Amino acid sequence: MQQDELSKQVFAEVMKRLNTSEKNNSPQFSTSPSPMPPEFVGTAIGDTIGLVIANVDPALHQMMKLEKGYNAIGIVGARTGAGPQILAADEAVKASNVKILSIELPRDTKGGAGHGSLIIFGADDVADARNAVEVTLSELNRTMGDVYGNDAGHLEFQYTARANYACQKGFNAPMNKAFGLIVGAPAAIGVLMADVAVKAAQVDVVGYGSPANGGTSYSNEAILMISGDSGAVKQAVIAAREVGLPLLESLGGKAASTTTPYII
Amino acid sequence: MQQDELSKQVFAEVMKRLNTSEKNNSPQFSTSPSPMPPEFVGTAIGDTIGLVIANVDPALHQMMKLEKGYNAIGIVGARTGAGPQILAADEAVKASNVKILSIELPRDTKGGAGHGSLIIFGADDVADARNAVEVTLSELNRTMGDVYGNDAGHLEFQYTARANYACQKGFNAPMNKAFGLIVGAPAAIGVLMADVAVKAAQVDVVGYGSPANGGTSYSNEAILMISGDSGAVKQAVIAAREVGLPLLESLGGKAASTTTPYII
Amino acid sequence: MQQDELSKQVFAEVMKRLNTSEKNNSPQFSTSPSPMPPEFVGTAIGDTIGLVIANVDPALHQMMKLEKGYNAIGIVGARTGAGPQILAADEAVKASNVKILSIELPRDTKGGAGHGSLIIFGADDVADARNAVEVTLSELNRTMGDVYGNDAGHLEFQYTARANYACQKGFNAPMNKAFGLIVGAPAAIGVLMADVAVKAAQVDVVGYGSPANGGTSYSNEAILMISGDSGAVKQAVIAAREVGLPLLESLGGKAASTTTPYII
Repeated sequence: MQQDELSKQVFAEVMKRLNTSEKNNSPQFSTSPSPMPPEFVGTAIGDTIGLVIANVDPALHQMMKLEKGYNAIGIVGARTGAGPQILAADEAVKASNVKILSIELPRDTKGGAGHGSLIIFGADDVADARNAVEVTLSELNRTMGDVYGNDAGHLEFQYTARANYACQKGFNAPMNKAFGLIVGAPAAIGVLMADVAVKAAQVDVVGYGSPANGGTSYSNEAILMISGDSGAVKQAVIAAREVGLPLLESLGGKAASTTTPYII
Repeated sequence: MQQDELSKQVFAEVMKRLNTSEKNNSPQFSTSPSPMPPEFVGTAIGDTIGLVIANVDPALHQMMKLEKGYNAIGIVGARTGAGPQILAADEAVKASNVKILSIELPRDTKGGAGHGSLIIFGADDVADARNAVEVTLSELNRTMGDVYGNDAGHLEFQYTARANYACQKGFNAPMNKAFGLIVGAPAAIGVLMADVAVKAAQVDVVGYGSPANGGTSYSNEAILMISGDSGAVKQAVIAAREVGLPLLESLGGKAASTTTPYII
Repeated sequence: MQQDELSKQVFAEVMKRLNTSEKNNSPQFSTSPSPMPPEFVGTAIGDTIGLVIANVDPALHQMMKLEKGYNAIGIVGARTGAGPQILAADEAVKASNVKILSIELPRDTKGGAGHGSLIIFGADDVADARNAVEVTLSELNRTMGDVYGNDAGHLEFQYTARANYACQKGFNAPMNKAFGLIVGAPAAIGVLMADVAVKAAQVDVVGYGSPANGGTSYSNEAILMISGDSGAVKQAVIAAREVGLPLLESLGGKAASTTTPYII
């Protein structure tokens, strides 16, 4: 966090300098007296970075295929993790006046088996975009809690009692219902966990992803998305976790939580 | 193997416990008295894991887009290797009453240039599915024999005198004919090996894969699949290997066999 | 380079031996008295390798979906880097009588966030193909100069005063105009740099790539391609670099140039 404060100052200095020189040289800036510079909001676990642009350039906005009408955007990107960032963004959407404009999953995790993420919030007001990014970054420690990894792969579990727009956009989750996410890598473990989960409780399967058949960006994961009664969803997720951990550990030894498990 | 035995016991204990608690809580299980729990079959080289599900949940079966009519499935998944697992599965299909339901190639190899794999066998009977998984795991040491790697990339060669359903599904190989697989990473080496192979003997080119033009999941590989007379196929594969090794070694030094070469 | 000379000798020996044995066994070679063997041209930074095939096998040529009429091909492939190799190839196209037949971007960089590359030149004459490969390899040290990396990701910047066929094929760059490339990983940084770049000078946005929305092979990059007046393009690229470096360094510490920056 101290490191982030220092980085913010460095970044602000760069922007101030750029902005001054731009005003002298660029025809684009001569008409708009002082456009707000982009902001560095902070960093979090998983090489996650949060940024804000107050007024996206119109030509770029179009190339990015973003929905029109949102000048301010919040950006959260990470090398490691998609589910944790999306669940964290779901809390941000509940807490801010923003919309999820896009969620993209690169094939990443720095040599691991999964995804990174790029989430873009749209807002009318830059303060709302900044707030959404801040909430997302602050929630990440929690949502990384049921990510378990070792050298052979990883497991991920997410649960929310009320899914909102980020879970809907990212995982096809029905709004305002309990939602659960079960991810296993290598994918074989995810397939078995999926079967255990749907048999453990009465839940609706709302999505399934696998390495080359949709729902992933060619990651080595099988992914189950479930919705339904909150007790049933949690029960299904926990059953999958109980089954998945000894399987992953049979390949690569102890698979510890990335932070602290939150699904209890 | 001892480790696998221990893991099997741990896994069986988890399943027993889950099954008991499920019976008390889940309406789904109340009608079917004692569904068979999923089984952990074992592990093998390449972070390969083998699993069996006796009766896949129907909703999940549909989401997985698996062909209907096979309740029992065998699952083989790996972080490292696709060709070795598919050639091993080809022997399993010959030895068991199973069908290949799907083969998916994640972009993996733990930071390397190639694929991992997810292979699903379908069977009427759980014993057949288990047998197919066991054979696949036991064949892997052999089929990893002509995988050569160093820090700069890898080469892979496979040969079978009689291709069966796994090679057909995975590589478009004609049934019951000799089949050869030639893989080079970085892809440039694979391109050159492909040219050498087809000129070295009279073979049929049945497939070609490259990084972003089909046949791979964006791996850094060029892949040639050849079929024909068994002597010619083997000659082509061996010529490619002779040419590929010094090229890979020019980039990254000595590229040793992963286990013991079998194409001789 | 000394290493490359040794590798060339080893490779030539292998080809001589193969060619002799092939003539005895293969019906294909009996009619054409002495086909030219493929050539190992050399290696360069990024696990880049350069190769030449004088006369690609027709069946393979077709499977590779290469444009007809170019018997000789030059091949440049790399584990790490796409922009650097494409910009280097752009110089090669200017200096040789070759055409760019294909550019493919694997998801690679050896566990990093970006791409590798596979570039194929077509030529009537093998000497032209060889020359193109040699120029590409020799330009790579320069074009790697504005690639900056640390453990958290990388930034890449390219600039050319006159884009040619490689930039056109790879990045949709208008011919003979100044062209700039801006790449940030994790992708969030690339998005912000793109916005800064287009606001810093009057340039045309000719392309945009992001992790799962086109323009990448699921890499964790956002990529901006710009064209226009040479001063403006350079100004935009430099502004993006000034903004991107402190952001990447906020995640992963000092991000040094891979070789020596050339955009000044």
